[in-house]
Amino acid sequence: MSWNTFGRVLRFTTWGESHGPAIGAVVDDCPPGIALSEEEIQPFLDARKPGQNKFTTQRKEPDAVRILSGVFEGKTTGTPISLLIENTDQRSKDYSEIARTYRPGHADYAYDAKYGLRDYRGGGRSSARETAMRVAAGAVARKVIDEVSIFAYVAEIGGDRIDPANFDREEIARNPFWCPDPQAAKRWEALVDEARKAGSSLGAVVECVAEGVPAGWGAPVYAKLDSDLAAGMMSINAVKGVEIGDGFEAARLTGEQNADPMRPSLNEEGNDGPRFEANHAGGIAGGISTGQPVTCRVAFKPTSSILTPVESVTRDGEATEVRTKGRHDPCVGIRGTPVVEAMMALVLADHKLLHRAQCG
Amino acid sequence: MSWNTFGRVLRFTTWGESHGPAIGAVVDDCPPGIALSEEEIQPFLDARKPGQNKFTTQRKEPDAVRILSGVFEGKTTGTPISLLIENTDQRSKDYSEIARTYRPGHADYAYDAKYGLRDYRGGGRSSARETAMRVAAGAVARKVIDEVSIFAYVAEIGGDRIDPANFDREEIARNPFWCPDPQAAKRWEALVDEARKAGSSLGAVVECVAEGVPAGWGAPVYAKLDSDLAAGMMSINAVKGVEIGDGFEAARLTGEQNADPMRPSLNEEGNDGPRFEANHAGGIAGGISTGQPVTCRVAFKPTSSILTPVESVTRDGEATEVRTKGRHDPCVGIRGTPVVEAMMALVLADHKLLHRAQCG
Amino acid sequence: MSWNTFGRVLRFTTWGESHGPAIGAVVDDCPPGIALSEEEIQPFLDARKPGQNKFTTQRKEPDAVRILSGVFEGKTTGTPISLLIENTDQRSKDYSEIARTYRPGHADYAYDAKYGLRDYRGGGRSSARETAMRVAAGAVARKVIDEVSIFAYVAEIGGDRIDPANFDREEIARNPFWCPDPQAAKRWEALVDEARKAGSSLGAVVECVAEGVPAGWGAPVYAKLDSDLAAGMMSINAVKGVEIGDGFEAARLTGEQNADPMRPSLNEEGNDGPRFEANHAGGIAGGISTGQPVTCRVAFKPTSSILTPVESVTRDGEATEVRTKGRHDPCVGIRGTPVVEAMMALVLADHKLLHRAQCG
Amino acid sequence: MSWNTFGRVLRFTTWGESHGPAIGAVVDDCPPGIALSEEEIQPFLDARKPGQNKFTTQRKEPDAVRILSGVFEGKTTGTPISLLIENTDQRSKDYSEIARTYRPGHADYAYDAKYGLRDYRGGGRSSARETAMRVAAGAVARKVIDEVSIFAYVAEIGGDRIDPANFDREEIARNPFWCPDPQAAKRWEALVDEARKAGSSLGAVVECVAEGVPAGWGAPVYAKLDSDLAAGMMSINAVKGVEIGDGFEAARLTGEQNADPMRPSLNEEGNDGPRFEANHAGGIAGGISTGQPVTCRVAFKPTSSILTPVESVTRDGEATEVRTKGRHDPCVGIRGTPVVEAMMALVLADHKLLHRAQCG
Repeated sequence: MSWNTFGRVLRFTTWGESHGPAIGAVVDDCPPGIALSEEEIQPFLDARKPGQNKFTTQRKEPDAVRILSGVFEGKTTGTPISLLIENTDQRSKDYSEIARTYRPGHADYAYDAKYGLRDYRGGGRSSARETAMRVAAGAVARKVIDEVSIFAYVAEIGGDRIDPANFDREEIARNPFWCPDPQAAKRWEALVDEARKAGSSLGAVVECVAEGVPAGWGAPVYAKLDSDLAAGMMSINAVKGVEIGDGFEAARLTGEQNADPMRPSLNEEGNDGPRFEANHAGGIAGGISTGQPVTCRVAFKPTSSILTPVESVTRDGEATEVRTKGRHDPCVGIRGTPVVEAMMALVLADHKLLHRAQCG
Repeated sequence: MSWNTFGRVLRFTTWGESHGPAIGAVVDDCPPGIALSEEEIQPFLDARKPGQNKFTTQRKEPDAVRILSGVFEGKTTGTPISLLIENTDQRSKDYSEIARTYRPGHADYAYDAKYGLRDYRGGGRSSARETAMRVAAGAVARKVIDEVSIFAYVAEIGGDRIDPANFDREEIARNPFWCPDPQAAKRWEALVDEARKAGSSLGAVVECVAEGVPAGWGAPVYAKLDSDLAAGMMSINAVKGVEIGDGFEAARLTGEQNADPMRPSLNEEGNDGPRFEANHAGGIAGGISTGQPVTCRVAFKPTSSILTPVESVTRDGEATEVRTKGRHDPCVGIRGTPVVEAMMALVLADHKLLHRAQCG
Repeated sequence: MSWNTFGRVLRFTTWGESHGPAIGAVVDDCPPGIALSEEEIQPFLDARKPGQNKFTTQRKEPDAVRILSGVFEGKTTGTPISLLIENTDQRSKDYSEIARTYRPGHADYAYDAKYGLRDYRGGGRSSARETAMRVAAGAVARKVIDEVSIFAYVAEIGGDRIDPANFDREEIARNPFWCPDPQAAKRWEALVDEARKAGSSLGAVVECVAEGVPAGWGAPVYAKLDSDLAAGMMSINAVKGVEIGDGFEAARLTGEQNADPMRPSLNEEGNDGPRFEANHAGGIAGGISTGQPVTCRVAFKPTSSILTPVESVTRDGEATEVRTKGRHDPCVGIRGTPVVEAMMALVLADHKLLHRAQCG
Repeated sequence: MSWNTFGRVLRFTTWGESHGPAIGAVVDDCPPGIALSEEEIQPFLDARKPGQNKFTTQRKEPDAVRILSGVFEGKTTGTPISLLIENTDQRSKDYSEIARTYRPGHADYAYDAKYGLRDYRGGGRSSARETAMRVAAGAVARKVIDEVSIFAYVAEIGGDRIDPANFDREEIARNPFWCPDPQAAKRWEALVDEARKAGSSLGAVVECVAEGVPAGWGAPVYAKLDSDLAAGMMSINAVKGVEIGDGFEAARLTGEQNADPMRPSLNEEGNDGPRFEANHAGGIAGGISTGQPVTCRVAFKPTSSILTPVESVTRDGEATEVRTKGRHDPCVGIRGTPVVEAMMALVLADHKLLHRAQCG
């Protein structure tokens, strides 16, 4: 069963293949009366866009988004918002080899096993090109949750982590790695360039923080905020792990170490709810936001497209070797960063509406 | 919005509070004609049952499951299966303190922030007691996927990991920790007992393997098998992280190291699909199963119920301290193991039906 | 695929067979803080209860509802509300004949064709007994929409219609037919009694009106208020037709005759929206409520359980005759009336929450 | 809440406004390997297309459909099928009057009440233009159920019914009214032409028959085949009533008259299930198909766009009069006929997949 819709109340559906005429998304249930234009969506797509520097794939796609419905006189009408991007850089090339060979680490064999056929041009539906539409839909979601501020960054490439002591949020947009630590960014330049030249690839860890999420979003027990975040993040191409708050590190702590103590917080009107003294929980308890920043970490595997030959088989069951010659990202986690932000925005916007459906 | 249903085709809905008269689940869309009895479900509940040894909470619940519908003359009829467990060990105690105090690490404050009120007896709906119904529903799911064999085990407690060299699947059921490494099991006895005596708690990592999953289950792009597994696992109480295959470790590998090479596999009838030489991917590519074992890892935080006082606040915003006196698990990950197995079974059974809906 | 859940935001799931130990419903996403007790639900069940007079089946079921979850200290908590009714009047009888014979007009053959087996005792899941849980869930829904007043009545039995000139809302509860026209009620007494004595059965038309629905509930285009009402009503046992407003009669009018003119309506604060001068549309335009009463009409077929033998076949394909000897309703539309009310309440409550999810 | 998706397994989502740049649909979960081309979809759109004769609106839209995804080398791939039609006949005209006036019988006021704003050009999202995408999606659905043959026809215009004795299926496509009775078609020519000249409008009843539906499609109790058909049909613009089988007429029959007796049916392999001697039930019992033709009737109201002035109000609450000058259908039921067929196909295709999900 094909399932190309994400979300419970604010839902979006994506469609399109890497090398088809276009890709698109339909965002349903956006509240009415929100100012929205193509110009507001485009910058998020530009941030994800390939070919911007030597650290990402040289494939060139302008990724110019068009709004085809749901916006009238500059405002959302409450009806479905159709977003479309034409595919322009579909190099005509010979796909006969890829058509009959299963690329290890790609979805080629799995698609064939499921469907009996596949659109083999550039990965078809399994291409990370689909994530462009998440970014576009995410830009709409951000408008729904203007009380929330979201930022993501790369925290680790090829096992080389940032130093939290060097964390500078302003730095994130200043280097091609979405790296908040200027020293790590410098190291990664050499690291990623080396991988690129060697035709190799590197994994990465992306962290994402959402500030301003009020207490009370999320829901017991199968629409927990963390559960929906896990689903959203794990659905991104190349993602193999998701953590909320301390994640796996929490499994190594004692109850005392993992506690998030609360202190009274008073504002001028009196009791302002608890003030937390730590955030091991990542801003979520029992699946519901606590008012602290919502934090998650996402692991991207190294892309399987590498220059070194890997043993494989053909559709017909013959032994072969696969070696990627095309244009590819040495570290897909970098371009995954805006996608992680988008999924955070989409999950939170959905839960804002979920919450007010039940609780008014 | 409250959302107590999990699954897309094979769906189950759970209900009930820790200290209400009963808890239950309704399993919908189970295929007809499957032999099913209470006796087949009960052993899975017994495995999760508290009070079996000193390493788990001393709360006593027989957790006897009843089938109230959907089974006729020993076989499923295709109509909803209602499962019910009466709550028997609801010690009458004074809840007045817990009613007004927010226990750190619990959902008390989050529920109050969301709903304006909460059933404070034993955590109400946020209690891990809900997971008993997942185990019951999971027992039904296993019957739907009798081609699949699922086992989970604890791989790490309090940072102390099993040694893969000692792995013995038979050992898992022989110790109170679901530990496949007899030496680790011995060490954990001391470790967990110490935590218990100190009124402290420990985190754990649970690993789960499903063998026999055919290639082709799962779906692009928002019902990816890994995405649904992530959602299912992250929805379990106390879980903070989920990994598929190598997970976060994959983020530290190069493309060469992370490759899962394929070799031809011939059986008597000829081409039998690829034989994989590694399984970094955890049996899933592009969200679809590859025919390899499906593997995931789940991080459980230490329970927040500890003897050491933790600073907190009351509903009225006054400073207080919370110290747990009741019966609690020193390591909730242990009893989480059968729940992880159940969620694996439920996700796979759902995807078996999803697959045949589209692909026949 | 079995699908026992109705609703989009406020959802309820029913389970249970006619002759199983119990039937039940789980209502999910009820807003928190609403006063709710078994005593408030019971009267609606009593209104539907069989055996109250000679015009309905003599089967006796006390239909005492229990709330098993989701209510704490007399108020809804926002978590799922589990409702359960034990089946008490399961006469032990010999089902061997019904087990192998397909009753014409019943779901016997269809269930067998679908599932390969069926719970043949009293119709199993296809029994109208399921509607008791709709009535219980509907009682919860009414609490969610306390701005709305709903009433249904029988407008026609066996082709004999009420005279609108005699319409008296108070009369509805005064006779065993939910008939608002005292003269028609008198005629129906003879009509239904005659059918009962002859072992025959009669169809009926039920009309339902919801007053107080504000303008703006409903949604384009596949969750139109009228579309969801049609689905809800058509899912009731024995229903074969649904009309909104003038329904089929509208197909015989000209545009001029069918117009609902609007006039300005001013209250003390000024413009109070349009005042409609007619309501051919049944309070819904473009799938969205207009602020007028929402009206619908529902056609119930005569029950297929009759004393006259009807030709049929056995499971094995042999010719046979079926003749109903048991306790049955001569006119199922009568007892369907509270069910129609319940479905109206459930659809409207769902749409109240749907509306505020998107529009705040 | 906006809800622009229909279906449970085979789902389609439509988007677009009457006067926006384009309208579209995304069909998800179409089985893989089905031959599909634009040329196969186009004839269904041509059948619905306006401006083909004087009995329908003179608006001209070529309605040329494009497939943007989900089809590769002429076959469906199992991934979402994006269908798009550009809007070409958007006459630039002055909408200032319509912007501030509520047209009686249209959704203008309801949309404003719900959303606070609306795209007033040609009805925006509430325009029947949306139904073009249902027809396109329906053409895909037909390919999924090639065992089924569907046809719809107009059975009644302005209260003038066809004579069943004259029924000729071949005749349906031979006249501009989809009328199977040549004599009625002749009468309707005068009737509709008169209404057109008078600037009036007429209602209609459309009947639809699906032959070849095997026994066993449909599902208890909230995805009954008749319940889903009712929802699908009632969601079509201008529809006010839906009947299955005898519909409201069944409410006037006795149980004896309404019975569908069964006789044994033997084929060469033996028992071939029952042969029904009547079809009052419309091919559905207990929500599940019986193997007989599935039949339904749909009532279309007369369009509200008429030349005669109707009293109304402006957005600001002032009295006004509305009189339609534009191009409109004198009888929208005529062009609704291919839409009814499409919805029948979509519901049946969905249920074919639903059935095999559960029952294999």
